[in-house]
Amino acid sequence: MAELSGKSIIGFQQGGGEASIFGINPATGEKLQPGYAAASGAEMDRAVDLAAESAASFGKSTGADRAAFLRKIADNIEAIIDDLAALAPQETGLPEGRIRMETGRTCGQLRLFATVAEEGSWVDARIDHADPDRAPVPKPDTRSMERPLGPVAVFCASNFPIAFSVAGGDTAAALAAGCPVIVKAHHSHPGTAELVGQAVIAAVKDCGLPEGTFSLLYGPGREIGQALVQHPSIKAAGFTGSRAGGQALMKLAADRPEPIPFYAEMSSINPVFILPEALAKRGEALATGLHGSLTLGVGQFCTNPGLTIAANDASLEPFVSKLAELVGGSPGATMLNPGISDAYDSGANTLGGNNTVDIVAQGESGEGQCQARAALFRTTADAFLADESLGAELFGPSTLVVTHDGTDKMLALARSLEGQLTSTVHGTDADLEANRELLDVLETRAGRVLINGFPTGVEVCHSMVHGGPFPATSDGRSTSVGTNAIHRFTRAVCYQSFPDTLLPAELQEANPLGIRRMVDGVTS
Amino acid sequence: MAELSGKSIIGFQQGGGEASIFGINPATGEKLQPGYAAASGAEMDRAVDLAAESAASFGKSTGADRAAFLRKIADNIEAIIDDLAALAPQETGLPEGRIRMETGRTCGQLRLFATVAEEGSWVDARIDHADPDRAPVPKPDTRSMERPLGPVAVFCASNFPIAFSVAGGDTAAALAAGCPVIVKAHHSHPGTAELVGQAVIAAVKDCGLPEGTFSLLYGPGREIGQALVQHPSIKAAGFTGSRAGGQALMKLAADRPEPIPFYAEMSSINPVFILPEALAKRGEALATGLHGSLTLGVGQFCTNPGLTIAANDASLEPFVSKLAELVGGSPGATMLNPGISDAYDSGANTLGGNNTVDIVAQGESGEGQCQARAALFRTTADAFLADESLGAELFGPSTLVVTHDGTDKMLALARSLEGQLTSTVHGTDADLEANRELLDVLETRAGRVLINGFPTGVEVCHSMVHGGPFPATSDGRSTSVGTNAIHRFTRAVCYQSFPDTLLPAELQEANPLGIRRMVDGVTS
Repeated sequence: MAELSGKSIIGFQQGGGEASIFGINPATGEKLQPGYAAASGAEMDRAVDLAAESAASFGKSTGADRAAFLRKIADNIEAIIDDLAALAPQETGLPEGRIRMETGRTCGQLRLFATVAEEGSWVDARIDHADPDRAPVPKPDTRSMERPLGPVAVFCASNFPIAFSVAGGDTAAALAAGCPVIVKAHHSHPGTAELVGQAVIAAVKDCGLPEGTFSLLYGPGREIGQALVQHPSIKAAGFTGSRAGGQALMKLAADRPEPIPFYAEMSSINPVFILPEALAKRGEALATGLHGSLTLGVGQFCTNPGLTIAANDASLEPFVSKLAELVGGSPGATMLNPGISDAYDSGANTLGGNNTVDIVAQGESGEGQCQARAALFRTTADAFLADESLGAELFGPSTLVVTHDGTDKMLALARSLEGQLTSTVHGTDADLEANRELLDVLETRAGRVLINGFPTGVEVCHSMVHGGPFPATSDGRSTSVGTNAIHRFTRAVCYQSFPDTLLPAELQEANPLGIRRMVDGVTS
Repeated sequence: MAELSGKSIIGFQQGGGEASIFGINPATGEKLQPGYAAASGAEMDRAVDLAAESAASFGKSTGADRAAFLRKIADNIEAIIDDLAALAPQETGLPEGRIRMETGRTCGQLRLFATVAEEGSWVDARIDHADPDRAPVPKPDTRSMERPLGPVAVFCASNFPIAFSVAGGDTAAALAAGCPVIVKAHHSHPGTAELVGQAVIAAVKDCGLPEGTFSLLYGPGREIGQALVQHPSIKAAGFTGSRAGGQALMKLAADRPEPIPFYAEMSSINPVFILPEALAKRGEALATGLHGSLTLGVGQFCTNPGLTIAANDASLEPFVSKLAELVGGSPGATMLNPGISDAYDSGANTLGGNNTVDIVAQGESGEGQCQARAALFRTTADAFLADESLGAELFGPSTLVVTHDGTDKMLALARSLEGQLTSTVHGTDADLEANRELLDVLETRAGRVLINGFPTGVEVCHSMVHGGPFPATSDGRSTSVGTNAIHRFTRAVCYQSFPDTLLPAELQEANPLGIRRMVDGVTS
């Protein structure tokens, strides 16, 4: 196991301070060593100052340089996969196999962004040549491309200690774009964060990049996290967490003297609509698939199917019975931390205690602490439409089945939904053809619409949209997974009448990088 | 002259109410007829409800349909160019030639967006095929493209009664994207707004589009404008105006239960840096060019060069003398309205009264009301750096020359600047080569960086960026001019495992529209 320091990483230096933050093994309550010291205000300032100083040179590094850096990070992380697989399960209760898979995903994601940076066309280079003879006024030469915003703050998520944390999607996207990154570690997995942080800062050194390219800070979110978002040199931030936490930071970002883009992924109940013929023809398989999806990762996925909508017809009861049987037989499982476990228990109690809601089934109780019991709830469309508390996210292994009496009520339900990361429809060809309006409505409510699948499992690829209208995220124009995430951290700059030698290579007349460009309106 | 109703346009209906808003001829103070009635809350609700109802069908119209619509709007506006050229000068004090040129620009802009909508590749279609054999889990088929956000509110600007108003850049971009538009007219040119609004709604009818595609509302900004931004069915808004007005609306947009993208273009002083050799070699020509730029449109351009930075060396005084001579000889000219005229007078008095600022020259006083005197102010870099009030926008025909004693002070000045729409550098090849750091700094402060040009004059093309970091705009990731503005009003949606027939045409396997797409990572 690599040595853990229990300190923040401030560029090439180690932070100071006394240990005050301890990982907790959620299953046993054991306090894990080493403890971590909270970064001081001065340490945070130094990390941000270093990032600001490095922003110009890192922002001008070539795509090839950044690709080599991202690949080096991936190599360094793979080199410690056994350490991660040993430590992260202790900190998070997640099984070793999941940590190995998540580490692989994270390295694949870093390498995918490397190919994007290296290929270079992502900058959307556009050239409009001058026309000195145009009347009544000559046309100037203008050229534009995406440029990095500057230092970015990234908040680690509790539920993906590798893939949405220190070297996760936002970090990969920001580094690929040419933005220095300052990560705020999550208190739930401080050691895992340090292991990955060491891998990243080693890559910074290996690649000869400026010191401020990366820092990792520990500390209470309300202090260090809020201060980071408010720091004048931070130009954008990415966050994955609760709706309350995300909204508090959104407000801070918007209320700054200079407001900044703030990307929070917050709250989604990921409705699954099951259409009648599909329910009749394959209700049992749907119950099995849904159960697998809602219990995956102890239900601690942003895309957990928390809402299941089906018509109250003859096919419903066999489906619900099968799902109840599966949920009832689900073993107890360890949640990420006591806060999440308490919130799930409390939310499940509240939902189950609502007098319009039936508790159809509950899973087994596990042994040890932070054990989640899977749960299946049921209510009617009328009750759901009348009580918006039934649409609140319950983060954990549960779903609420909402029954309706026909298309109009189903559409009313769809229209009542807040913004979602995903919406899913199960249907036969005939079902789908008869319910195009449902698909049209869901497209306006979600970043990703799935047919005959389950929302858990978010593919890392070019066409992924892991985002969605508020409150799923703070900014539905953006994605936190997939290569389009690079645009979170950039803005276009137009260069007018620049001599060729002063232009970025991407915009020079001879196209030395050989990237795809739009020239006088024609892309090639 | 087309008949003016003095009423709001609520889809295909005319609003009601009593005339309470009157255009004023700024040069004479004459109250113009007809007066305009403020839209009632119920009328606004009806306009938004119509827009929301039309959003699904208009959002699914083809690019060819929207191109035909945009071209029809342009045709309809060209058909009334004589009416516009007769009326708009009375309402705005702008000369007829300017109105004709601005109308041409506006129609060109509509047609440019028509070509973008028609060509269709702007949607950034991405396809990642399934791989059912992938281990450990199969890869699903995912496809993404940009889709319209829904109803958009557009605020008319006072200073461009055609190009940034009813059928201006934001309207063209939103309609091209497939978003219904509700325009809030500016009280400064209500008749011009109605003429253009009639042209747009006629095009809606001509093209058989849904009634809610377009509405035009009159009323006080603090009431109807704020209510529009807060309406739950409005999904984005575009605004051009003052920093105070923009920030108030930004806050409303961020504080909604569902925050929305809000694009405000607000405040920019557009620094012009003149490097030493250029000043020595062509100081007189620079003075002439700068004078032309700062007095263009009576200085009422967002890109007015309000700040001129030069070294205090031997070449400075001839340049300042020439500029003073030109400014001193500038005739008085009519500003857009009494509010803008009063703000300019008051701001110029405050700036001139600052004891670190010299009034170098003032232009002639005009005859009539709302007359602006051009003004040339001068201060030192130290004074500018010590008093941030000197960096406030003064909207009108003036510039503040800031002198410095060398590169370090010049760079400090550049670094002290807030976000700008433009930054300009004048230099010889040797100057520019020696001042690459200045260009690097300015790129972080502005949406457009110009070399050896003047910032007024914003080309409508693919590579234009008319945006910039706060406070130039509310969202520096965006542009209000040029074809990239279409992305203001869209977000990507991912379709997972959709049958081909249920996919939008842009994403169907056979590529029936023949657009450029990224398929499995390869764009062609």
